[in-house]
Amino acid sequence: MTQLYFITGNKGKFHEAAEKLRPYGYTVVQNDIGYPEIQAESLTDVVTWAVSDIQKRVNHAFMIEDAGLFIEPLKGFPGVYSKYVFFTIGLSGILRLLRSEENRKAVFRSVYAYSKPGRKTLVVTGECIGTIAKQQRGGHGFGYDPIFIPRNEEKTFGEMSMEEKNQFSHRAKALEKLIAALNKNK
Amino acid sequence: MTQLYFITGNKGKFHEAAEKLRPYGYTVVQNDIGYPEIQAESLTDVVTWAVSDIQKRVNHAFMIEDAGLFIEPLKGFPGVYSKYVFFTIGLSGILRLLRSEENRKAVFRSVYAYSKPGRKTLVVTGECIGTIAKQQRGGHGFGYDPIFIPRNEEKTFGEMSMEEKNQFSHRAKALEKLIAALNKNK
Repeated sequence: MTQLYFITGNKGKFHEAAEKLRPYGYTVVQNDIGYPEIQAESLTDVVTWAVSDIQKRVNHAFMIEDAGLFIEPLKGFPGVYSKYVFFTIGLSGILRLLRSEENRKAVFRSVYAYSKPGRKTLVVTGECIGTIAKQQRGGHGFGYDPIFIPRNEEKTFGEMSMEEKNQFSHRAKALEKLIAALNKNK
Repeated sequence: MTQLYFITGNKGKFHEAAEKLRPYGYTVVQNDIGYPEIQAESLTDVVTWAVSDIQKRVNHAFMIEDAGLFIEPLKGFPGVYSKYVFFTIGLSGILRLLRSEENRKAVFRSVYAYSKPGRKTLVVTGECIGTIAKQQRGGHGFGYDPIFIPRNEEKTFGEMSMEEKNQFSHRAKALEKLIAALNKNK
């Protein structure tokens, strides 16, 4: 088993990654040392910048992740600030902004970066395309799950079990890409 | 005259500071070298962090500024992300979020930080308390000016001349505090 340090304060993300990576021979170890996130328009900018900061303090391989919900008629809002927006205007704020809006297209995005001394940093993106529901539905998941409906589905993420959701999850897709890239670069 | 480097890409902020500081014997020089802004809950955290980053690259005195609009019923939103929110959901988004909201209290905040080698960094805050208008009014100013009414006034910042606005301006107040602190620390 190869140890893989995941720098995150989020236990949910850690467990998800640990389960996903175990069958591929990786033991994920959570490392909550924290790092600064810059204000930027894309998740890729946020994680790339964070990687160069962490590399100054950490001399072994590690990975980090950042995610966000990008709503098309709101020009990508809340995007990289999804967490902040969730804790201020919340789901009801998002629904209010979209009231009487026909275009409800949105995409959940997850970006993983993997850094190893002497190697080029790997950055992978996973996406889940969908729409914003007219109202909150379901008590599963967290964050924007109760208002996000993946494409070709009727239920929101909030109405799905973890297994159902993981078929579509942006984070699961990003992890799969990361695994493929790691195996290729072994 | 003492030269004072203002690190900013914003010409408006630069001119405002230059005019305000000239009578006190300071020549403000604009220096647009850029710096990262972190995601944080307070402007003070953003500027303090930026100062330590800039200090690694700049070996003379400099100042920076960050500002935002904090709306009470929206838990401080858009706050440190005011610029991003302005360019995504915009003023109409803010008004929509506050529709049928009785409490329209808001505060414009500006934080200046001044760093000089061998000295403790000065951080000062200026505030302008007010309310959010029911609709946009006036073509003056920029950003959130057309929806912000300072306390005890009827007009929005967007309906005021530069001179009128500067009586209340959070940025002007912060600059006054900075001048006082600089004179005290001479």
